[in-house]
Amino acid sequence: MSNRDVDAVEALFNPRRMAVIGASSHLAKWGRIVPSNIMRDGYKGELYLVNPRGGELNGMTFYPSAAAIGKEIDLAMVTIPAENVEGVLEDCAAAGTKVVIAISGGFSESSPEGRALEESMVAKARSYGIRVVGPNTMGIYSAPWSLTALMPPVRPRPGHVAFAAQSGNLGTQMLGWGSFRGIGFSRFVCIGNECDLEFADYLEYFARDESTRVILLYVEGFKRPRRILEIAEEISLSKPIVIYKAAGTGAGSRAAASHSAAMAGTREVYAGMIRQTGMIRAETTEEMLDFSDALVKLPLPRGRRVAILSWGGGWGVVAADLCEQDGLEVGPLPDGLRNEIGEILPSYWSKGNPVDLVGQLNMDNHTRCLELLTRSPEYDMVFSLGTINAASAFSLKSEDRDGTEKSAVDAQRAYVRDRSMHFAQRVAELMQEEDKPIVAVKMPQQDSDVSADGTDAYPQDRLCIHANPERAARVLAMLADRAGYLRSRGA
Amino acid sequence: MSNRDVDAVEALFNPRRMAVIGASSHLAKWGRIVPSNIMRDGYKGELYLVNPRGGELNGMTFYPSAAAIGKEIDLAMVTIPAENVEGVLEDCAAAGTKVVIAISGGFSESSPEGRALEESMVAKARSYGIRVVGPNTMGIYSAPWSLTALMPPVRPRPGHVAFAAQSGNLGTQMLGWGSFRGIGFSRFVCIGNECDLEFADYLEYFARDESTRVILLYVEGFKRPRRILEIAEEISLSKPIVIYKAAGTGAGSRAAASHSAAMAGTREVYAGMIRQTGMIRAETTEEMLDFSDALVKLPLPRGRRVAILSWGGGWGVVAADLCEQDGLEVGPLPDGLRNEIGEILPSYWSKGNPVDLVGQLNMDNHTRCLELLTRSPEYDMVFSLGTINAASAFSLKSEDRDGTEKSAVDAQRAYVRDRSMHFAQRVAELMQEEDKPIVAVKMPQQDSDVSADGTDAYPQDRLCIHANPERAARVLAMLADRAGYLRSRGA
Repeated sequence: MSNRDVDAVEALFNPRRMAVIGASSHLAKWGRIVPSNIMRDGYKGELYLVNPRGGELNGMTFYPSAAAIGKEIDLAMVTIPAENVEGVLEDCAAAGTKVVIAISGGFSESSPEGRALEESMVAKARSYGIRVVGPNTMGIYSAPWSLTALMPPVRPRPGHVAFAAQSGNLGTQMLGWGSFRGIGFSRFVCIGNECDLEFADYLEYFARDESTRVILLYVEGFKRPRRILEIAEEISLSKPIVIYKAAGTGAGSRAAASHSAAMAGTREVYAGMIRQTGMIRAETTEEMLDFSDALVKLPLPRGRRVAILSWGGGWGVVAADLCEQDGLEVGPLPDGLRNEIGEILPSYWSKGNPVDLVGQLNMDNHTRCLELLTRSPEYDMVFSLGTINAASAFSLKSEDRDGTEKSAVDAQRAYVRDRSMHFAQRVAELMQEEDKPIVAVKMPQQDSDVSADGTDAYPQDRLCIHANPERAARVLAMLADRAGYLRSRGA
Repeated sequence: MSNRDVDAVEALFNPRRMAVIGASSHLAKWGRIVPSNIMRDGYKGELYLVNPRGGELNGMTFYPSAAAIGKEIDLAMVTIPAENVEGVLEDCAAAGTKVVIAISGGFSESSPEGRALEESMVAKARSYGIRVVGPNTMGIYSAPWSLTALMPPVRPRPGHVAFAAQSGNLGTQMLGWGSFRGIGFSRFVCIGNECDLEFADYLEYFARDESTRVILLYVEGFKRPRRILEIAEEISLSKPIVIYKAAGTGAGSRAAASHSAAMAGTREVYAGMIRQTGMIRAETTEEMLDFSDALVKLPLPRGRRVAILSWGGGWGVVAADLCEQDGLEVGPLPDGLRNEIGEILPSYWSKGNPVDLVGQLNMDNHTRCLELLTRSPEYDMVFSLGTINAASAFSLKSEDRDGTEKSAVDAQRAYVRDRSMHFAQRVAELMQEEDKPIVAVKMPQQDSDVSADGTDAYPQDRLCIHANPERAARVLAMLADRAGYLRSRGA
């Protein structure tokens, strides 16, 4: 990476001053929507709006040009039609702009004429020493600067995942799901057509970026796979790289060609590349977030032995199947541990692993079993089902009742909620005390909304809670694979 | 099936009168929780509570015995400890009881002594001509009688899926998820230890039951697989049977042995049986509901050709991959159709299948594209992503604004919501008009709750809406497989 690349990506994610070129006051124009999003989230740098025809937005008067701002502009986001982008580069250069984000579609992804337009635009940018993000991009997000320079109305949550996506709608969707699920991002870029800055540039920056702990990539095709091969192996030894490779089929590749103009490459080539570089493959769109989140929050296991704690037998059976299918070891309960748990649970408990809590209503007994399993040297990780939000399974409705009965029900509800919270806190604490991952599955039994089960108040930034056991098992297996890979590489 | 079996299962799901034996007024006793659930949901038959020690609940005085009720009791639910169950059968017989549900654990699933207790109890029941559900069961649900005779507080939604589950907590969890997702059940039984009535008895009843359109089974192991083999093939030609087979691994089988006392059998035997009988295998716990729901609501496709309509390119790529991986055909757009869609969308649209709406803000253009694709003879089904709840992607917050701007934003919100609803209604109508399935994926882009995106008001009983493209693709492939199977059998 040349110094110029470093400067450019550094400026992109840490702009002291930025301009939106093509600002507008019209509700349905990106020239209004983008700066509104930036202002809404409280960008910590200085924002300037530029439109030669004048106007204003939220009390900010538009400058006739970037040069007219009279200060050095690190980043310019250009929201005008494709054919006019090249024309504003001279002005950007005059303002000392290091990077331009070109959001417009209609470049190389759409037609031969668009490709010519893109090549001419990039050549002009190069001649001014300006680097380009996109075109055909939905923008960027940068947590340390509270900078949401994005087209959709999504509000990303600040956190430690850096994400480069070869799709704006999929990428910003992930930011939205992340906000909903308590998963935060350090940086995000929709790479667009990669006419200039490309995956490898972002990847190298993320590797060095202190606010980033996990790197996530949504890839239809790498423009220069060789460069990725050269850098990803070393990066992934220190920071995990989660990758979702789309366009793995004929139908997907054809779709990608018209979407991101990406050359998809064959499945086999990418599979080999992912293996060789130690990147972590997400097999589903949800796994992009599940894996990234777990790698931020959970310690890596020392081996593949899993203890399963389930509130009921059926889910224990399903979880045991899933763990074994995913290559984990559901080993037997050692005698000593069986005796200790036997003193806590009713006589008809499962007496094996999975530990079936047989609908036990005393929630402190759940916590005691969790502690015993997590502390046992026989297990490297714990899979906990149905206890993290047990409150929702009990929730008697006190509204239907009256008098002393209402008080009794309210007291019971308060007890369950309090003890559920205690359980969740102990999950977070035990992971730290024992340096072992614990993954939880929450199973709301009411026809209530999952967000109404009290789990919102849990220490979300330290817990991984899944909505079904399939995803939890995959996360545990991924952590074990990651730990195994690092051991095999002596890292 | 003998007449006695028919009578028994008939009485179980359609009891004119039922008694809870072991009624209690203590908050934490099943003898109180179960009748409370029954009363809450408005059971249409007559409910009686029995406890020789007397007492009352919600103004209902306990009878000293079932016989003392003085009327014929079709169904008795027994909520007392295992060792006392056998002792109440004589009284049940005196009241003319046809079926007993024994909820207690501590029978054959827990120990050799428990097994002896169970055998003795069943022998006694047989001697009185009483059939037994369970023991070790969480109960039943029957929509036509609004009968929720269940231990957990779940409120099932009435509908057309009949569900027999070899796990109470997993089974009732599915009922709860169903309520949350708009998926309704006609009947539910947690089969427990199958000491007497077993899978095949319920299956035969569901086959004849007019309120049931799809049968769902959660199976750890069939007690008498041969009997299932004999009946399932014929049943599945007229009513689809969705099956989730758990305990397919060593770890899962060991867990099942202590949970339901089931002999899990080998994966291969079950795979062969499922194939031979034309049952439909759910590979994940979520697919139990996804598949059942789709088979209730959607028409079967005539072939495997799928048209993909996506609001953005990345999701189109992912959907195309998934369809092809699942054995569907993502065929090209015929010229005529390409020209028609070209007149609706901006010039930089994808010009192929997937049809990428390129962030098109005019929602009626979404609807027009949907109509063209669904009506085209080139496609057997339609996969629609990101449009069903596009409202959530636009949702500007009017609270942050004032004056004319607030009105403008409110007007835009109202427009998007209205047109999103129109789109959803057209999905339902087009399926009927064209007799083709349309599966939708909703992609909330805000950090808002999915239930707040307006989709609650959609015609839920006629739509299948999924939270990610993976599940939608699997549902479409399942429907195509089902249609192919029926054609191959001349059905």
